[in-house]
Amino acid sequence: MIIGEELSNMPWEDRPENCKDVVWRYSKNPIIKRDATKNSNSIFNSAVIPFKDGFAGVFRCDNKCREMNVHVGFSKDGINWDINDEPINFKSADTTDPEIGISKYKYDPRVCKIDDKYYITWCNGYHGPTIGVGYTEDFKTFYQTENAFLPFNRNGVLFPKKINGNFAMLSRPSDNGHTPFGDIYYSESPDLKFWGKHRHVMTTTGIEISPWQSTKIGAGPIPIETDEGWLLIYHGVLTSCNGYVYHMGSAILDKNEPWKVKFRSRPYILSPQTQYECVGDVPNVVFPCATLHDSKTGKIAIYYGAADTVTALAFTTVEELIKFTKENSMI
Amino acid sequence: MIIGEELSNMPWEDRPENCKDVVWRYSKNPIIKRDATKNSNSIFNSAVIPFKDGFAGVFRCDNKCREMNVHVGFSKDGINWDINDEPINFKSADTTDPEIGISKYKYDPRVCKIDDKYYITWCNGYHGPTIGVGYTEDFKTFYQTENAFLPFNRNGVLFPKKINGNFAMLSRPSDNGHTPFGDIYYSESPDLKFWGKHRHVMTTTGIEISPWQSTKIGAGPIPIETDEGWLLIYHGVLTSCNGYVYHMGSAILDKNEPWKVKFRSRPYILSPQTQYECVGDVPNVVFPCATLHDSKTGKIAIYYGAADTVTALAFTTVEELIKFTKENSMI
Amino acid sequence: MIIGEELSNMPWEDRPENCKDVVWRYSKNPIIKRDATKNSNSIFNSAVIPFKDGFAGVFRCDNKCREMNVHVGFSKDGINWDINDEPINFKSADTTDPEIGISKYKYDPRVCKIDDKYYITWCNGYHGPTIGVGYTEDFKTFYQTENAFLPFNRNGVLFPKKINGNFAMLSRPSDNGHTPFGDIYYSESPDLKFWGKHRHVMTTTGIEISPWQSTKIGAGPIPIETDEGWLLIYHGVLTSCNGYVYHMGSAILDKNEPWKVKFRSRPYILSPQTQYECVGDVPNVVFPCATLHDSKTGKIAIYYGAADTVTALAFTTVEELIKFTKENSMI
Amino acid sequence: MIIGEELSNMPWEDRPENCKDVVWRYSKNPIIKRDATKNSNSIFNSAVIPFKDGFAGVFRCDNKCREMNVHVGFSKDGINWDINDEPINFKSADTTDPEIGISKYKYDPRVCKIDDKYYITWCNGYHGPTIGVGYTEDFKTFYQTENAFLPFNRNGVLFPKKINGNFAMLSRPSDNGHTPFGDIYYSESPDLKFWGKHRHVMTTTGIEISPWQSTKIGAGPIPIETDEGWLLIYHGVLTSCNGYVYHMGSAILDKNEPWKVKFRSRPYILSPQTQYECVGDVPNVVFPCATLHDSKTGKIAIYYGAADTVTALAFTTVEELIKFTKENSMI
Amino acid sequence: MIIGEELSNMPWEDRPENCKDVVWRYSKNPIIKRDATKNSNSIFNSAVIPFKDGFAGVFRCDNKCREMNVHVGFSKDGINWDINDEPINFKSADTTDPEIGISKYKYDPRVCKIDDKYYITWCNGYHGPTIGVGYTEDFKTFYQTENAFLPFNRNGVLFPKKINGNFAMLSRPSDNGHTPFGDIYYSESPDLKFWGKHRHVMTTTGIEISPWQSTKIGAGPIPIETDEGWLLIYHGVLTSCNGYVYHMGSAILDKNEPWKVKFRSRPYILSPQTQYECVGDVPNVVFPCATLHDSKTGKIAIYYGAADTVTALAFTTVEELIKFTKENSMI
Amino acid sequence: MIIGEELSNMPWEDRPENCKDVVWRYSKNPIIKRDATKNSNSIFNSAVIPFKDGFAGVFRCDNKCREMNVHVGFSKDGINWDINDEPINFKSADTTDPEIGISKYKYDPRVCKIDDKYYITWCNGYHGPTIGVGYTEDFKTFYQTENAFLPFNRNGVLFPKKINGNFAMLSRPSDNGHTPFGDIYYSESPDLKFWGKHRHVMTTTGIEISPWQSTKIGAGPIPIETDEGWLLIYHGVLTSCNGYVYHMGSAILDKNEPWKVKFRSRPYILSPQTQYECVGDVPNVVFPCATLHDSKTGKIAIYYGAADTVTALAFTTVEELIKFTKENSMI
Repeated sequence: MIIGEELSNMPWEDRPENCKDVVWRYSKNPIIKRDATKNSNSIFNSAVIPFKDGFAGVFRCDNKCREMNVHVGFSKDGINWDINDEPINFKSADTTDPEIGISKYKYDPRVCKIDDKYYITWCNGYHGPTIGVGYTEDFKTFYQTENAFLPFNRNGVLFPKKINGNFAMLSRPSDNGHTPFGDIYYSESPDLKFWGKHRHVMTTTGIEISPWQSTKIGAGPIPIETDEGWLLIYHGVLTSCNGYVYHMGSAILDKNEPWKVKFRSRPYILSPQTQYECVGDVPNVVFPCATLHDSKTGKIAIYYGAADTVTALAFTTVEELIKFTKENSMI
Repeated sequence: MIIGEELSNMPWEDRPENCKDVVWRYSKNPIIKRDATKNSNSIFNSAVIPFKDGFAGVFRCDNKCREMNVHVGFSKDGINWDINDEPINFKSADTTDPEIGISKYKYDPRVCKIDDKYYITWCNGYHGPTIGVGYTEDFKTFYQTENAFLPFNRNGVLFPKKINGNFAMLSRPSDNGHTPFGDIYYSESPDLKFWGKHRHVMTTTGIEISPWQSTKIGAGPIPIETDEGWLLIYHGVLTSCNGYVYHMGSAILDKNEPWKVKFRSRPYILSPQTQYECVGDVPNVVFPCATLHDSKTGKIAIYYGAADTVTALAFTTVEELIKFTKENSMI
Repeated sequence: MIIGEELSNMPWEDRPENCKDVVWRYSKNPIIKRDATKNSNSIFNSAVIPFKDGFAGVFRCDNKCREMNVHVGFSKDGINWDINDEPINFKSADTTDPEIGISKYKYDPRVCKIDDKYYITWCNGYHGPTIGVGYTEDFKTFYQTENAFLPFNRNGVLFPKKINGNFAMLSRPSDNGHTPFGDIYYSESPDLKFWGKHRHVMTTTGIEISPWQSTKIGAGPIPIETDEGWLLIYHGVLTSCNGYVYHMGSAILDKNEPWKVKFRSRPYILSPQTQYECVGDVPNVVFPCATLHDSKTGKIAIYYGAADTVTALAFTTVEELIKFTKENSMI
Repeated sequence: MIIGEELSNMPWEDRPENCKDVVWRYSKNPIIKRDATKNSNSIFNSAVIPFKDGFAGVFRCDNKCREMNVHVGFSKDGINWDINDEPINFKSADTTDPEIGISKYKYDPRVCKIDDKYYITWCNGYHGPTIGVGYTEDFKTFYQTENAFLPFNRNGVLFPKKINGNFAMLSRPSDNGHTPFGDIYYSESPDLKFWGKHRHVMTTTGIEISPWQSTKIGAGPIPIETDEGWLLIYHGVLTSCNGYVYHMGSAILDKNEPWKVKFRSRPYILSPQTQYECVGDVPNVVFPCATLHDSKTGKIAIYYGAADTVTALAFTTVEELIKFTKENSMI
Repeated sequence: MIIGEELSNMPWEDRPENCKDVVWRYSKNPIIKRDATKNSNSIFNSAVIPFKDGFAGVFRCDNKCREMNVHVGFSKDGINWDINDEPINFKSADTTDPEIGISKYKYDPRVCKIDDKYYITWCNGYHGPTIGVGYTEDFKTFYQTENAFLPFNRNGVLFPKKINGNFAMLSRPSDNGHTPFGDIYYSESPDLKFWGKHRHVMTTTGIEISPWQSTKIGAGPIPIETDEGWLLIYHGVLTSCNGYVYHMGSAILDKNEPWKVKFRSRPYILSPQTQYECVGDVPNVVFPCATLHDSKTGKIAIYYGAADTVTALAFTTVEELIKFTKENSMI
Repeated sequence: MIIGEELSNMPWEDRPENCKDVVWRYSKNPIIKRDATKNSNSIFNSAVIPFKDGFAGVFRCDNKCREMNVHVGFSKDGINWDINDEPINFKSADTTDPEIGISKYKYDPRVCKIDDKYYITWCNGYHGPTIGVGYTEDFKTFYQTENAFLPFNRNGVLFPKKINGNFAMLSRPSDNGHTPFGDIYYSESPDLKFWGKHRHVMTTTGIEISPWQSTKIGAGPIPIETDEGWLLIYHGVLTSCNGYVYHMGSAILDKNEPWKVKFRSRPYILSPQTQYECVGDVPNVVFPCATLHDSKTGKIAIYYGAADTVTALAFTTVEELIKFTKENSMI
């Protein structure tokens, strides 16, 4: 059972008749095409969140220089999006310090509401990739604060409420290239400025058990609070002789000590199989960055980047996903 | 001329009218889709053989953990297959020895009938990939015996009759990863337990001559006995800047000393060109593992994995393939 | 404004209505399929030039051994091509020297008319890849002369007239594999035999600015003389976790000192986005090797290889491309 | 001028007569041999500090399993050391949390006195190398606290007093192997538990300027407070065709904003040239981890590991080293 | 207790007074210098055995082309050796088969007496490195038989008597270069021609426990039969940032099922520390290939290559080495 | 027989009594120590030539930044050298062109007298390593001209007289790092500005024959004209598991067509075996860059860099070296 708000206007489509998979694709995928803004080369790995009577989002838009940045967008139905042509212009949260706000590039954003603020985290270019942090209250004015960690790090994902009285974040320490390794760690912060209490959460598998997650793993959407613990959807990478293949999986983390994994799916819940997932700037990628979910019905809509080119949508329910994760757990 | 049995019920389709290639694809490829069993991620690189009044097969089915295993299947026509949802459960041929039957994974099976038994060889996970060996008489009960070789080895392919009084096998020694080298060797065994008399058969080419087979090569289907010698269909790999490309070629080996190559095709006989060969879990792969053939007509049906995702079928005749191999030989 | 001849019979198609890109694709791409000659595996990265009342071309045709060679072809309209089944048989320009004419392979040709001769340059296999040079006057008899440089070099592109009284060539020094680096250099020769006065022209970018050209770059078609300087279309490569992605960009070089770059486009002008550019022997490649252009109208037709498999056509005009390059310049 | 305490009993040896180098070696090097404890394979990369009427130290001792750990030692004169045979047994500073104190290995310690405590930092094995933190008041009982950062990090070096009211640390983010890159960063902490305000301090050079520090750099001893700013001795690595070569250099950091580099020596101040620096478990290494210094005379004694095998001593004075750094600065 | 023959004339030197190591070096090492034969570049990694009233040996002599081969030598005292200037000329044991005896190079020999024959195994160049096998009865006439395994393999070491009625061999499957991995396996043969019953014996360690054997391991001298089982001295490799470091360790294998490891030393028993072990063609190598031992006194003399350049000698006793192995075992 | 001038004052030392090697070391090596100039880290890989009544030389001096540059030096006896503390300040030979004279670094010089000028070639940093060219008439004023080739190239060595009426140079095309491949090529120039007629001279060997030259080779001193052809001393590299090992070998090239190799020594003529060759900034290097020779006596003195740290001297005679090369030739 999802612990949280109702969201009756979230996008939804029932499972196709002869489909037995725990997660199923939206029939009109991709929902956002590569050229949905004026100068975009591709729009993918992006985050959405309920906002006012509709939805807001922060979108990774690579432009035609193939430079990486994040843009804001809005939607009434979560499916049709109006994305700004220009990147978000973050203001420094501390204008006295010229080091805050340095950002050679931004990519793979997540958006998390904690209390009254919308926090954005992303992979920020500060002498290497690290976790950039910012916030907005209205999706008009955005502030950038201190980076959470030293480089090299990616896939920083906040929890939607404080844990042990602290802000909490998952992240995946990496190197400065196409990192061929990567585990998920947990950190806490009293103030979103200083971070510590680093804990190891999950490592990769060998190639003999669950090979889809044998090269590296990284947290995806903001964890969903349920009565079973934190439901985490994450990506896992297998290295084939022709490069990386990105899949989607699920785990359940302990509610109070989220670095303890209670269940972890041995099978993937989605793998690249459609044309828009297999053909594009990076073939064979599904990369989840956000969910919308309704505590009343348990419906979950997963937003994911496909082939590093377009944005797609898939569905499941909390009951089914938790059941699947528990029944297929490797823990 | 094929030396062997007739097989009037083998699958067949005439060469398309304006096709001049020595090997042509079945028009309804792929014949086995990735989801043909309950939990399969992909079904490819698999072996079939005449059995009773139809056909049996051992299929590589990667499940949704992307774990690799082999399943048995049956068909009346060689095209429509009924594949078991569960992997083959091999019994140990020597239950007193707990080391026999160890198998962290199984992939790329071949099936070979010698006398009255159906022998199965595959890439077996025993502290690294090596050649697993088993047999069945009824495709219901399967026995696993000693691995043929030390790791690291792949593509172990038996000859369908004894040579110099011994069982004989082709294989491709490798390393423990995506091996960027690989030649075909020959070995003999008096008893399928102890192997020796190792001989080098074929090496790779340079990138100046026949580049499709410049990175590594490996035996494919069980060699076909003909009056010209053993007709071998094999795969060859080219390394592009975007990874490996797997092609199919042919050679003729000496009948009594099969480590001597009499002819070897400089051009490939099939390369990945269709959507199902170019797009999938590993783009640009055709990987032959079995043939059916009819000594009366000389027809050959080649079963091959496509894009490490699905199973496809192609056709040729022994006359044409031998003629092609001799006329285009690099030897 | 193009400085040069009129070419009223060049191929052309207006920009599609809702397209705003500076370069647009021909609607019937690819114009040359992979099997357009008898033994070809693929036909791509090729050069065309006005000849008599139509067009001639030198085409990279990889055969079914995947050996690389160049073939001559002819066309009335620049779109429908008749390509010879056999490779060009170059005669040695100096039959007394057996070292001239050594060529283990030939690929990626360019054709350049200077005065009355048609010069062909290509990547020539002489103890490693280097720049082969030849010429023809009639596209029937071809002569090969001394290689321009020591190995390892690729993408040698002549200027269509002498500079400072010398022949002039752009090239991209490399290594003997899938070179992960590469800048464009300039060299001069008084006689097409001895080369010197080597100058550095352009380097790659970092991954923070214009990442599409961050791994390596190489000159494409023969530079087009304009009143702004030499208009150069070139390729740039980005390294994704799944390999190289080839894009197309533009620059303007100083007329008299072409090693000085006046403008250089930060965005690409074409990237692999269609099925025939994204799926093939090497996914995600657009590789320009030639243009046709008409000084009267300013129309430019760009010939480019797609996915290392087929040949395609795109259009722009000199006014638009120069405007785009200047307005989007990183210089 | 050193700002700090006098240390009249520190080890010292005048510069040899015909030596003109800014740093000179102790004539009886190495001062600690590889077998100075019962089970040691090697003793190097270690830290010393004034303690009571003599000196204490924390020493990297690899045992004969080649496992890495830290041992405590004591000396009257700073030259002759008595090192414990057993590794330091750190107690957890928070025994309620089993994650604190996890340490698969410990190496390259530094010791820093702040107020009344002696803080130890080291490379700590916690799901990868990161910065372990501990303290002692008596060099008998040692406490381990939270790791400062997420993996992967090495060479964590504290400042000897708070900056901007916070603890301050230099570190060098890395990867999980023999990291072929590495810059120095700065971080602050209000409580030694939560860290943030990460700032980039210094990057590596190209191979054209100051190649000795072109592969990676890392802070060495605790920075020395002077009237010119923080005097930092650090190591820099050059990659030869036979591996890494470790050198020693110097820089001066801004007193209040230590991430700002005021001066940085272009030449090294010491390079591996003696037998004990060039021959050992890792040839060609000098690796400084500590200094002793006397504010009255300006004398500095540098302790450094040699060839990853033994511990050696070198001398300079603050006046000379600052003068050298300023006169040879690349900034 | 050694089970075997007495050898009162074996070389011996008591442990130096203040040495506490389980293995100690001969004081006059190296016993064989690099230029001990006419054309030798180096003599190392070699095997000796009692023969008649003295000793015979098979020596790896790299010549001044740096080609690798094996030479025979003789000694009265095991210390002063007379080594032939010419390599051993092996005759084919089966002259009817031209494939037997193919050997592009030979290195790292072992000599094992079983019944009345002296068997030699070595790394044999047959389309890659594999285990060559030969024998002699008089150290004058040598015969080469079938290679034991397919490439790629090294460090093939026979047991000195049959096990389960079969010949038995340890080996280390590898790749075709400077293999960065490697475990020890066990195989049996009824006839020294056909091999099977392959069993995994020992794997490498992680870098957290016993790092000296974390990259690869390989059997060294012929195992010594004792009442505790087979005493195996082996080499283990650590990868430093400057390359491989070779150490020596010990294990005890089950007498009847030698693939079962009863004890395995966590510390090394010898590591490269002297000038002749640390400086030479390959720095930092000790590589044991043979022992002499006396069942009466338990004395063991270990012959090992040093720095891939010279041959050295070290001593221990069976009692001490077994005690050490058991007390320091990781099993 | 050497064809050339007499040089009675050249350095010389007879072969030691019990030495049978074709090349023997000077007993007082190294002749130039690493600190022979004020700021030098190392002095090696350097060239000398008769000048006036003594000798002049151009020396590779890496300074204590480890920056690479060339210095001039003088000697009366060829053994005791006076080397300038400052690098050579080359003037541009064409001051109108700012591109001439660009040099980010200079290393591995050779000096060659042709007619009345002393030409210097070196590895020059111009957007990568290439062959820099300069000249002097008095070793006081030095001029730099156009680089001979495009990057990436090293070891450019002129012939001491024109061939076929042209200047002639050997070189070794490479890549931009520690190039793991490399053959020797030949080029001609009418004017030292434009170069062409590139010919392949010698390739590396396999690891089965003459492994000391299996990774890369490069010309060393200026070829010596003899009645047998051009006597070339060159270096060859073997890759051990601990990096590169540099050896010295010899070949005889055809007098008029020097790209034709008449004889080539299968054994090396010198390998790193002494302390000063095995221990230093790069262990295990002997690297010849110059000879002095006397046509009357046939004496040859070889100057070579040792361990990339110091300069050493070795001797042979033309008769012996030619005899050795012919008797041990692999051609």
